[in-house]
Amino acid sequence: MLIQRLSIIGVGLIGASLASGLRRAGECNEVIGCGRGVENLRKAVDLGIIDRYYHDPAIAVKDADVVIVAVPLGSIAGIFKSINDALSPQTIITDVGSAKLSVIADARQYLTKHLPYFVPGHPIAGSEKSGVTAFNPNLFNGNRVILTSLPETDLQAASLVQNMWEIVGAKVVNMQAAYHDQVLAATSHLPHLLAYSLVNSLAKMDSKTEIFQFAAGGFRDFTRIASSDPRMWHDICLSNQDAILQMLEYFNTDLNQLIKAIQQKDSKQIEAIFSYAKTTRDELLNS
Amino acid sequence: MLIQRLSIIGVGLIGASLASGLRRAGECNEVIGCGRGVENLRKAVDLGIIDRYYHDPAIAVKDADVVIVAVPLGSIAGIFKSINDALSPQTIITDVGSAKLSVIADARQYLTKHLPYFVPGHPIAGSEKSGVTAFNPNLFNGNRVILTSLPETDLQAASLVQNMWEIVGAKVVNMQAAYHDQVLAATSHLPHLLAYSLVNSLAKMDSKTEIFQFAAGGFRDFTRIASSDPRMWHDICLSNQDAILQMLEYFNTDLNQLIKAIQQKDSKQIEAIFSYAKTTRDELLNS
Repeated sequence: MLIQRLSIIGVGLIGASLASGLRRAGECNEVIGCGRGVENLRKAVDLGIIDRYYHDPAIAVKDADVVIVAVPLGSIAGIFKSINDALSPQTIITDVGSAKLSVIADARQYLTKHLPYFVPGHPIAGSEKSGVTAFNPNLFNGNRVILTSLPETDLQAASLVQNMWEIVGAKVVNMQAAYHDQVLAATSHLPHLLAYSLVNSLAKMDSKTEIFQFAAGGFRDFTRIASSDPRMWHDICLSNQDAILQMLEYFNTDLNQLIKAIQQKDSKQIEAIFSYAKTTRDELLNS
Repeated sequence: MLIQRLSIIGVGLIGASLASGLRRAGECNEVIGCGRGVENLRKAVDLGIIDRYYHDPAIAVKDADVVIVAVPLGSIAGIFKSINDALSPQTIITDVGSAKLSVIADARQYLTKHLPYFVPGHPIAGSEKSGVTAFNPNLFNGNRVILTSLPETDLQAASLVQNMWEIVGAKVVNMQAAYHDQVLAATSHLPHLLAYSLVNSLAKMDSKTEIFQFAAGGFRDFTRIASSDPRMWHDICLSNQDAILQMLEYFNTDLNQLIKAIQQKDSKQIEAIFSYAKTTRDELLNS
């Protein structure tokens, strides 16, 4: 068995899905939950995802082999601060935050005693649904998990975290934190911001009810991510501010080039813009 | 039987799907195809979608009860011009263009002899795939078709076109052409332009191959529409220029408000923007 005692700080979609997947694989004996909402934690016990829970992270991590910090990015620093003195010397800590430079900065500041045993991680999986009831032990199956180890990260710690994700079916990839933040700003953060903005533009129109009625399949797919948790995305914007603003600038440049081409009825340019996008997408994505 | 002889000008996804749906329902006897590409037309014959074909629209519409003009928006004026003298007096003409004011302007200029028998239409269905081989007799089932009749439109003509769409399972809605163009600019044209622009922004990055590799489910859905036919979307941009530029301006205002909030780390504003979008979408769309 890989993990005797697992502590999940933040029993939401990601934490609950990981714990249930590990348990189903028989690779985790005891699961301790930690969070603020009693109702959510009780549900997690009822669903068999956790065995018991505490509200104080310092108590919840006691004697844990592995601690998963699965709270919103803006709450990670506070968690690190409160567990730093309570962790056993060899406890391995990992997180699931969508931005990595900011989490690493938090760890350097508040997880001082355990930095070599902290393995920064990010599962590229999720759903616009959130909360423990949305849990799915197969959530990570076939999806990528990015680990962004530090120069000082203990190799065995990194290896255990990699094993843990592979057990629930994920493909683990290692990369630099700064590069992770750029790639995610491009492929996840920017699309989410565009979807939120698009829905807001339509929501302000007088005819919004009719407009949403006539929204066909493509629109549903396109805006589905605008149903994601606002607090989580607020935190991502602040934690990955630099890379996100950079991508927004690239996007604005491209969009304004297209607007100009439409204003000028520049046929050649309009078709070139669309063709380049279609060709690239068809080449690099296959569905 | 509703239609003895149906002429399809432009045997692509929409025309082929409609013809096959009508035929399967036993509501159409003979189907004449018209287009430029011999290979495509031969395939349509092989697939049993059309009975025979001509390259000259003036010949293809001869003695037709109903003519479906299913060519890209930029080619509609030319088709109207070439069939105006060849149409039988009572032949009903309809189209499937994604913009309606421009098609109506084309009809007023070139379909002078048959204006009362022209019923402007737009099926809100499609696929990022195109061409006759993508045909699907169920394509319109449960989807909306918007008809934007003119003050001079013959009521029986409008009624027959409505019946035709209902036979293939569509829900027909009547509205003003200008309103149609606004609603479509909001729900279809703007999302397509954003998807094309987003893919282009990523395609220009040095790490594009890796970036597309890490693009998860949401990104696939979000950019799927960027695989649509560039020529078709070029035509839509020019045909619905005013409504599209208006929507792009609204969107730009909203996006720049979000960018400013991220630059200033304005927590309250960022969360308000995301919450408003989530609430609106969850209320008005149910998936």
